[in-house]
Amino acid sequence: MAQAVQASIGDSEFDRDTAVTLRAPGVYDAELSAGWTIISAVNGGYLLALLGRALGDALPHPDPFTVSAHYLSASQPGPAVIRTSVVRTGRTLSTGQASLLQYGEDGAEIERIRVLATYGDLDTLPDDVRTTAKPPVMPAIQDCLGPSDGPAPKIPGSSAITDRLNIKLDPATVGWVVGAPSGKGEMRGWFSLADGRDADPFSLLLTVDALPPTSFELGLKGWTPTVELTTHIRCRPAPGPLRVSIATRNLAGGFLEEDAEVWDSADRLVAQSRQLAKAPRG
Amino acid sequence: MAQAVQASIGDSEFDRDTAVTLRAPGVYDAELSAGWTIISAVNGGYLLALLGRALGDALPHPDPFTVSAHYLSASQPGPAVIRTSVVRTGRTLSTGQASLLQYGEDGAEIERIRVLATYGDLDTLPDDVRTTAKPPVMPAIQDCLGPSDGPAPKIPGSSAITDRLNIKLDPATVGWVVGAPSGKGEMRGWFSLADGRDADPFSLLLTVDALPPTSFELGLKGWTPTVELTTHIRCRPAPGPLRVSIATRNLAGGFLEEDAEVWDSADRLVAQSRQLAKAPRG
Repeated sequence: MAQAVQASIGDSEFDRDTAVTLRAPGVYDAELSAGWTIISAVNGGYLLALLGRALGDALPHPDPFTVSAHYLSASQPGPAVIRTSVVRTGRTLSTGQASLLQYGEDGAEIERIRVLATYGDLDTLPDDVRTTAKPPVMPAIQDCLGPSDGPAPKIPGSSAITDRLNIKLDPATVGWVVGAPSGKGEMRGWFSLADGRDADPFSLLLTVDALPPTSFELGLKGWTPTVELTTHIRCRPAPGPLRVSIATRNLAGGFLEEDAEVWDSADRLVAQSRQLAKAPRG
Repeated sequence: MAQAVQASIGDSEFDRDTAVTLRAPGVYDAELSAGWTIISAVNGGYLLALLGRALGDALPHPDPFTVSAHYLSASQPGPAVIRTSVVRTGRTLSTGQASLLQYGEDGAEIERIRVLATYGDLDTLPDDVRTTAKPPVMPAIQDCLGPSDGPAPKIPGSSAITDRLNIKLDPATVGWVVGAPSGKGEMRGWFSLADGRDADPFSLLLTVDALPPTSFELGLKGWTPTVELTTHIRCRPAPGPLRVSIATRNLAGGFLEEDAEVWDSADRLVAQSRQLAKAPRG
């Protein structure tokens, strides 16, 4: 099969839209692209990738090992500033803090997200793999369903992000598209960036929050705002499409958790995340 | 059976040892008790409870909903200071930050833990429960095993914390005590405070990090230092003993995750946590 020229890491839509520019020590300017919006706001995983890149520059270690983000207010496309500070530096790990801020009508800064993150160097980790988790069982990529394979799901507001991602969902988890949600809090699919750029630790920060929310398959529609999202990056991903599974086991009291696992083409569990989100009222 | 007088919430060993004293706006003095040490350091869950209480005082909402802690250096018994700041206050949620610091030989402050946390009011949440997770299957409390029921496990260093907790482990997860670990990354048990104080959201922050590490059942001995621990408190726990299950599914590259679930006597999933820890070398 013919394939378009593949964008490389460092020269892709994702890299351009997550670029940060050093303005002063620890302070980075960024432009939140309208291309990564969904429903009513900029996607939280895209924002996490931006913050991750700023911290990767500010800290002595290159790779996010664990990133804890508390979401404070909904980001809008446009200018933003990321303020970082180094909390601790060690030989193998360093910890930093970052805030993403935008500007109100009066020019005052409004904080969107605050992050604590511990970084290291994935290339220095030992080779031992004693993972007992198994990759999600789902059909081959050509038997999974993307936006062009059927009726468009009714999502209110923007769906610009869907043009930038190549997500093919397991047919068992797309009942919500046709008004027949499974009732199970599960979503599974194949994931890659639309321009073919391979995954790296920063794009994994996007990947963990890129699938439709599990709440859609629980019959709840609408905005599922993230309160907090923590991601562990455990391995540098191999080239090729990723498999992502997300699951919710505790929808109660108006909140739900979402656990994501990301598997690479070499069957390594490369990222694990958990978020606490507000349940839609629908 | 006769039972000793039960300590009440607010008047117990746990409450005394997690007390914080306001020194200045947002700044609290604390004394890290030697009674909550394990192996070579003060237990991370006990420290989290201390930080949780300080933030509960500093923020307008009383209950921790999600607490993300990055552990920077090992705490020692003795004086400490907790510095808090309010990140955002909203109608239903507020977010704060806190650092636990101790003092070096030269009197300089050394940061032990930094926390981001979002608080709310558990009593205002709606009653809906659509939890699909099930409580862990394990024997009745009288058929589970505590320190007085068999050979003492060989843990190097302090085990003072075991006197303050009433933990009875599922016999299926105590093979490590007699040198025959199951090889499964699982640990399950009944949990209560030794003086009978009932659980509340702050003691749950201790509970999620109180069982022996799953790595013991994976045949690894020794110190499993937490890098990051995020806890969701989802419901005010009912009185009575708690059931705790922890599981590791991804031991690789010198790190492991540990997921904990805490269930109360009313079969509610009251807390979920995940930590990233360094795997012991043994």
